[in-house]
Amino acid sequence: MKRRGVYAGSFDPVTYGHLDVIKRGAQLFDELIVAIATNISKSPLFTLDERKEMLIESTAEFDNVRVDTFDGMAVDFVRKVKANALLRGIRTISDFESEFQMALTNRTFAPDIETVFVMASLEYSFISSRLIREAGSLGGDISNFVPPTVAKKLEKALAKK
Amino acid sequence: MKRRGVYAGSFDPVTYGHLDVIKRGAQLFDELIVAIATNISKSPLFTLDERKEMLIESTAEFDNVRVDTFDGMAVDFVRKVKANALLRGIRTISDFESEFQMALTNRTFAPDIETVFVMASLEYSFISSRLIREAGSLGGDISNFVPPTVAKKLEKALAKK
Amino acid sequence: MKRRGVYAGSFDPVTYGHLDVIKRGAQLFDELIVAIATNISKSPLFTLDERKEMLIESTAEFDNVRVDTFDGMAVDFVRKVKANALLRGIRTISDFESEFQMALTNRTFAPDIETVFVMASLEYSFISSRLIREAGSLGGDISNFVPPTVAKKLEKALAKK
Amino acid sequence: MKRRGVYAGSFDPVTYGHLDVIKRGAQLFDELIVAIATNISKSPLFTLDERKEMLIESTAEFDNVRVDTFDGMAVDFVRKVKANALLRGIRTISDFESEFQMALTNRTFAPDIETVFVMASLEYSFISSRLIREAGSLGGDISNFVPPTVAKKLEKALAKK
Amino acid sequence: MKRRGVYAGSFDPVTYGHLDVIKRGAQLFDELIVAIATNISKSPLFTLDERKEMLIESTAEFDNVRVDTFDGMAVDFVRKVKANALLRGIRTISDFESEFQMALTNRTFAPDIETVFVMASLEYSFISSRLIREAGSLGGDISNFVPPTVAKKLEKALAKK
Amino acid sequence: MKRRGVYAGSFDPVTYGHLDVIKRGAQLFDELIVAIATNISKSPLFTLDERKEMLIESTAEFDNVRVDTFDGMAVDFVRKVKANALLRGIRTISDFESEFQMALTNRTFAPDIETVFVMASLEYSFISSRLIREAGSLGGDISNFVPPTVAKKLEKALAKK
Repeated sequence: MKRRGVYAGSFDPVTYGHLDVIKRGAQLFDELIVAIATNISKSPLFTLDERKEMLIESTAEFDNVRVDTFDGMAVDFVRKVKANALLRGIRTISDFESEFQMALTNRTFAPDIETVFVMASLEYSFISSRLIREAGSLGGDISNFVPPTVAKKLEKALAKK
Repeated sequence: MKRRGVYAGSFDPVTYGHLDVIKRGAQLFDELIVAIATNISKSPLFTLDERKEMLIESTAEFDNVRVDTFDGMAVDFVRKVKANALLRGIRTISDFESEFQMALTNRTFAPDIETVFVMASLEYSFISSRLIREAGSLGGDISNFVPPTVAKKLEKALAKK
Repeated sequence: MKRRGVYAGSFDPVTYGHLDVIKRGAQLFDELIVAIATNISKSPLFTLDERKEMLIESTAEFDNVRVDTFDGMAVDFVRKVKANALLRGIRTISDFESEFQMALTNRTFAPDIETVFVMASLEYSFISSRLIREAGSLGGDISNFVPPTVAKKLEKALAKK
Repeated sequence: MKRRGVYAGSFDPVTYGHLDVIKRGAQLFDELIVAIATNISKSPLFTLDERKEMLIESTAEFDNVRVDTFDGMAVDFVRKVKANALLRGIRTISDFESEFQMALTNRTFAPDIETVFVMASLEYSFISSRLIREAGSLGGDISNFVPPTVAKKLEKALAKK
Repeated sequence: MKRRGVYAGSFDPVTYGHLDVIKRGAQLFDELIVAIATNISKSPLFTLDERKEMLIESTAEFDNVRVDTFDGMAVDFVRKVKANALLRGIRTISDFESEFQMALTNRTFAPDIETVFVMASLEYSFISSRLIREAGSLGGDISNFVPPTVAKKLEKALAKK
Repeated sequence: MKRRGVYAGSFDPVTYGHLDVIKRGAQLFDELIVAIATNISKSPLFTLDERKEMLIESTAEFDNVRVDTFDGMAVDFVRKVKANALLRGIRTISDFESEFQMALTNRTFAPDIETVFVMASLEYSFISSRLIREAGSLGGDISNFVPPTVAKKLEKALAKK
């Protein structure tokens, strides 16, 4: 049986933390689908196409990873692509609490889909897309947090605002 | 002495989690008043009248429960209706932290009013009105989370948006 | 219907924190039974009789509080004395986690018995019998934590060791 | 590539919570090895042979699960059996904190071995072997927590003490 | 070597909780700079000048405390004023989690700057500027939470809205 | 005014985590006293002399750090050596909860003594003396956690047991 996992998120933009989780997921599953949510409530900094492009570039080294987009609930996408599990990266304790609640909700909607957690590297364990957008807008050097091409695009995007 | 409790919230909409807490509160107090806050900051999905109607319908089976609305601080309402305690339902650890802070604040404003916590059933321990509104708007089946009449109204309300 | 609550513990010795919870419970229930567990695993500092005597003295001011002892599971004692609920005092977040687990276990053994939580006063929110025994044995002044008669007995008990 | 996971513990005795995690692990990995630690510090209630026998019986229904024992560090056993990952079941928030610390330690000792977390079913999320031993010794009915054959053996083991 | 600390925030408005932390910081450092962030995202209730005025008034009693404003990242301000450390007040457990994440981020941006935490007094440990603005707008008596002059200004500011 | 801090513990044995906190404390205070508790309840692996020797060796590089021992309560030692503050290192969330409780207790016994927290480096944030003793006894390589001389002594001490 082929084991297929889905790593869903808004990736606005992709960070080294995300890539660390993707690397771990690529080893855990035969195929890992990185799925960008199209219907996030807040207006994203990057367009869906930009976010997809950055993800494809950043995950090019992984043979068994592909990038996709989805609309609606993540568990419905998992079923649609015949995956077995949702992959989540745990960063901090407080992170886990909301992850826990989301996983329990997903289990109610789709008891057949497992949520699988891996731990991000400690060095990436406290970064988030929101934090990076904020730090970038305050003039902070974010090169430790995102790949170089993403850093450049973030700079441009923030300059436009 | 008659023991009277107040269970305050925005109930937008009422969920099986709320009803589970109400059932427990109805056994703990001689009278339980379910009090809908009229001055919540975010624009609610349902009008005050709709929320009240759904609550009255859903709590019809409890003889010692009545539904009311209040403006201002919950502790002032507790005093006005000569109740002894605020009832709160605990769902998760992270939930408890904000509950704890709110209860401490209420104690400062009204040292004579006790906040009493009961634990919601595990099966309802992770649902919230916000989660249900979100899931509903993404096309999820929310029939496990709210009474049938609420589910129908939620469907209509989300379709209008 | 008469509402009767049980506040169970080892009370080795009773602290101002316990007495604060007892005061709140005495207002919440028509009758509150403070129940000393006789089968605690670790060897207690005080004998059962000493603990009972200290509790009776310290709770003398509350008309609707009585002190008892129990063997076995707390929920079985609750049933035996025809009480409706177990009262617990919440002191800190970490406290709540173990309280939560114990309450869930009790619910499995006895779904008809509610666990009801009240918040201890902030000033007593971090003290515990263990802490007081430790501080006392290190020569700390524990008069802020326990009633004067308990402080005297603690001093004697620690001197004997 | 065959994906092999290890689920290590003392299983003193195996509970429905463990079996729930094993079921989830059996779906996540091509092979799951349930590994009983032989060098736990506290004196176990059941002998190694008894714990192994109960686990073999309780996991008979899973084709890709086998039971083994290990001495020393779990990560060394993972390497010895050429597995890729340690499986852990998350039960509560407080549980996760110690799990998190253990997983970080394991990562330091063995960076190539991933720790993978799945969530136990809510109904089993608060039970532990220790709790069951305690409840059993207090005369509680533990049939909701462990398989019938384990319940019988636990009764006998506690009667002997 | 002179030890200089920075206590940064939006202070909208300053509370007794802030002042408690400032008092502790004034004892810990040779000089403490209270730094008001000018670029907070949400529209503040008080103007920068009002917030500065209230802080200067409220900290007049401390000889080694001065009030300043800053734009951009707090760590850049710490460097600019040749301070050694960022001072933070811990109020609750949940508070600490976000503090922890912020401090880790700051450490990445500026490894040479230490974040130093002190514990606010228990009686101020649950109040926040947001809570006070909310309570004030609901008609609550906030005189236990802020200095009298701040209370007056808050009343006026909320009346205008 | 000279600022003097005390960093108290059992240091059984000193770890890279402790040394990281000591380095930070040496920058925060004019003088830092590392104080070994002589009255820890559990029987230590190393004698007081061994622990002191390892600490003196490991902190030789810091001019303003000296090692001492104390009996009784840490706050009494702080007063005796005319220090202003207790230094504590925060490692994880769960760590903070017990730290918080200890600091509040200390504040009750000695309101004039501040507890000051710094964050250990992430890479040392999950190690503890207990964990290292355990890992060492299971044959794990602990060279990433303690200085080389400590590692050697630990090996010998565990071999003797």
